[in-house]
Amino acid sequence: MKNMKYDSKALWQMDKDHYIHPWTDFSTFKETGSDVIAEGDGIYVFDADGKRYIDGIGGLWCVNIGYGREEMAQALAEQARRICYYSTFTHLTTPPAAELAAKLAQLAPGPLNHVFYTTGGSESNDSAARLVAFYFNRLGKKSKKKIIARVDGYHGSTLLTATITGVGFDKIGFDTIDDMVHHISCPNPYRRPDGMTVAEYGDQVIAELENKILELGPENVAMFFAEPIMGAGGVIVPPPGYHKRAKAVCEKHEVMYISDEVVTAFGRLGHFFASKDHFDLQPDIITSAKGITSGYQPLGAILLSDEMYDVISVPQAKGAMLTNGFTYSGHPIACAAGLKNIEIMEREDICGHVREVGPYFQKRLESLYDLPIVGDVRGSHFMLCVEFVADQKTKALLPPEAAIGNRISRLAQERGAIIRPIGHLNVMSPPLTMTKAQVDDLVEIIRQSAVLAMDELKREKLWNG
Amino acid sequence: MKNMKYDSKALWQMDKDHYIHPWTDFSTFKETGSDVIAEGDGIYVFDADGKRYIDGIGGLWCVNIGYGREEMAQALAEQARRICYYSTFTHLTTPPAAELAAKLAQLAPGPLNHVFYTTGGSESNDSAARLVAFYFNRLGKKSKKKIIARVDGYHGSTLLTATITGVGFDKIGFDTIDDMVHHISCPNPYRRPDGMTVAEYGDQVIAELENKILELGPENVAMFFAEPIMGAGGVIVPPPGYHKRAKAVCEKHEVMYISDEVVTAFGRLGHFFASKDHFDLQPDIITSAKGITSGYQPLGAILLSDEMYDVISVPQAKGAMLTNGFTYSGHPIACAAGLKNIEIMEREDICGHVREVGPYFQKRLESLYDLPIVGDVRGSHFMLCVEFVADQKTKALLPPEAAIGNRISRLAQERGAIIRPIGHLNVMSPPLTMTKAQVDDLVEIIRQSAVLAMDELKREKLWNG
Repeated sequence: MKNMKYDSKALWQMDKDHYIHPWTDFSTFKETGSDVIAEGDGIYVFDADGKRYIDGIGGLWCVNIGYGREEMAQALAEQARRICYYSTFTHLTTPPAAELAAKLAQLAPGPLNHVFYTTGGSESNDSAARLVAFYFNRLGKKSKKKIIARVDGYHGSTLLTATITGVGFDKIGFDTIDDMVHHISCPNPYRRPDGMTVAEYGDQVIAELENKILELGPENVAMFFAEPIMGAGGVIVPPPGYHKRAKAVCEKHEVMYISDEVVTAFGRLGHFFASKDHFDLQPDIITSAKGITSGYQPLGAILLSDEMYDVISVPQAKGAMLTNGFTYSGHPIACAAGLKNIEIMEREDICGHVREVGPYFQKRLESLYDLPIVGDVRGSHFMLCVEFVADQKTKALLPPEAAIGNRISRLAQERGAIIRPIGHLNVMSPPLTMTKAQVDDLVEIIRQSAVLAMDELKREKLWNG
Repeated sequence: MKNMKYDSKALWQMDKDHYIHPWTDFSTFKETGSDVIAEGDGIYVFDADGKRYIDGIGGLWCVNIGYGREEMAQALAEQARRICYYSTFTHLTTPPAAELAAKLAQLAPGPLNHVFYTTGGSESNDSAARLVAFYFNRLGKKSKKKIIARVDGYHGSTLLTATITGVGFDKIGFDTIDDMVHHISCPNPYRRPDGMTVAEYGDQVIAELENKILELGPENVAMFFAEPIMGAGGVIVPPPGYHKRAKAVCEKHEVMYISDEVVTAFGRLGHFFASKDHFDLQPDIITSAKGITSGYQPLGAILLSDEMYDVISVPQAKGAMLTNGFTYSGHPIACAAGLKNIEIMEREDICGHVREVGPYFQKRLESLYDLPIVGDVRGSHFMLCVEFVADQKTKALLPPEAAIGNRISRLAQERGAIIRPIGHLNVMSPPLTMTKAQVDDLVEIIRQSAVLAMDELKREKLWNG
């Protein structure tokens, strides 16, 4: 905390009176209002009253290099002094937009050499889907329109990307587009049918993908959206070989494979991109955002293959253009932040740090299995999750009134750590600079919170132990 | 120019090899590549070779306070030092997000007291449309789904907002959603039917709106999207009274009026918001972006009325949330830029400057009517446009091969001013700090360019004079 003074009560009131939050829970918001997070330093954040928390969620899966980096602050200011903004529509560019595009092409696997900028993950996925439809239109394959995605996949909050999203909870009360997106199962090994091996389960979910393509007709299916590890859907790591096999199925039927790396890219799994280096998957498109600037700036990037570029970059009708894009596509300050972020990650070998500390983090979380409400500890490296259950053996859930995810998060926050509740899960995606000692601190808080939660649940007669 | 050195050739090459631009014209891009804009100061920008240009387009209708503002650079850096990012999902916030929400509610007209943040105009319009559908679902009016918009209206580049957009040129090769959006005429007085007064034309376009609602059935129509002055569609100022009358029609049929002020807000027409102060329109929703930070940061804001808030903020199904939003909704650095931008605008009375210089700018542009290819000079204040024709009397267009918009822009750029070609128009939306002397410089360059264009067209036998 930098000894700044904040009028926390006034900020709380302004927020409550005027700010409509993403995912507001109006059953409580008008009474509780918001916690005001005012400062950050390394892996820690501070509320407006000065209380310190371990930031177990890394902002929102994104503050990869940690808070308060002076050289990031300088990079933003320096770029604002040079040029704060310029359009990159048509044939205009700025130095950071050009340099970052070249750098991303260098980091991305295989022939993903062409960059389309957005301001975040929703726009990245929305534009990726539009560009694939454009691609097939250009090839004259105009029936190829349908999108296959997975239950519990999260891909964004524009109308199109909310439609691609497969999290049922996120659709209550909101409309989506009819008959455009078809969802197949979430490939969650922990919840696979009883008596089935993980390998058999892998065969089943891959067969389901191919059967869905055949059912819809390959001539009607344009693209498949998948996160390497599902994020908001519950940190789901698919069965071994899933992505590579899914890609082979897609390739067989000329379905574009879009790897949504909004969460997994830029070090979270120990590599700049997880698709190839972690999962041996060469997708047709990677979509990214979040970690590309470590959250210091709103930026997203779509990486397209040479093959796709060769098709979409042929002039279509006379005078027509590639009419997709955003005012802030290639924003120079955002791109300057992206360049500085990558420079820091390379200089400090943050990917190497994640490859070293990530397995330790996972092992430490797995030590919680001695607590009877810990059903599953899963994920990879700095993208982890604990699934809570009533019974480790049957995997039965606690009753909804237990609100176990929210309960654990509340208890952890009281003890100085912010972790994210998602249903009966708690998710961790801290800054990638977290040390082993800091991992120990975080896991200890989660242990204490889970122990206290068990006591509470017994007292409230919501669990028998 | 700050005497920085740029390797303009290397930047050009990186851009050409790796950057897919919004609205790329691939008939020439692979040969010409991009102009690299490297620095800015006040109303001027500089390319990577040091050549200076008057920025007649204000970045892209957005750099309202001008380039190189040291206190903006400082504000970005200072906020990055405090907290570079935090999630504002559920019940979390940051000081700048809360403060800016309160400030916007104070500036916005009437009961528009509730702010939903996005990262730009496309997301603002996409989320506004989703929130209106949610609103009617909550009211149990589930058939109210259809959107009415206007031919030549521009509302964004997500699938939904590209569908709402009415510019035919922008749809070539790209898919849009079927049967969701219905477009009525562009209310362009210059192109009204021969022999009709502007007042009669106003009656006609308002009747068309009501007839469209009645044709679709008011029980099926949810919302009407309109820019106060159409931007990318050609700086179209509707007939007097249009917006107020359109609002009355919408109100009669319970159709939400969404005023797309992405271009017009934050001073471009001499007020923070143009709807009420310039057009006497009290919309149900205002969408904004661009000028909110003068383009220094990607940010958008949707302003919703108390009435809408009261409906959407009642908890729906048990445990359900308002499941719409973006990682970068309420980004603290972007919101800090918004606050500083508004502070500068208020302190320097930039709106007052626009109200003084804007009419002068328009009058100076109208002096071009002595050139026989100038058909119409239109717009308002710092949002202006020249429409070029073959014949002032018949309003006949020059042949497409004349490429008059591109030609004028090229000639102007050679002479040190960047103005935006849109078909046979050239559009001006410079920084709002432009002085009368600088207006004279810009208009003189446009005059010289138009005179040279006439000579060229005669030589090329594309125009007889």
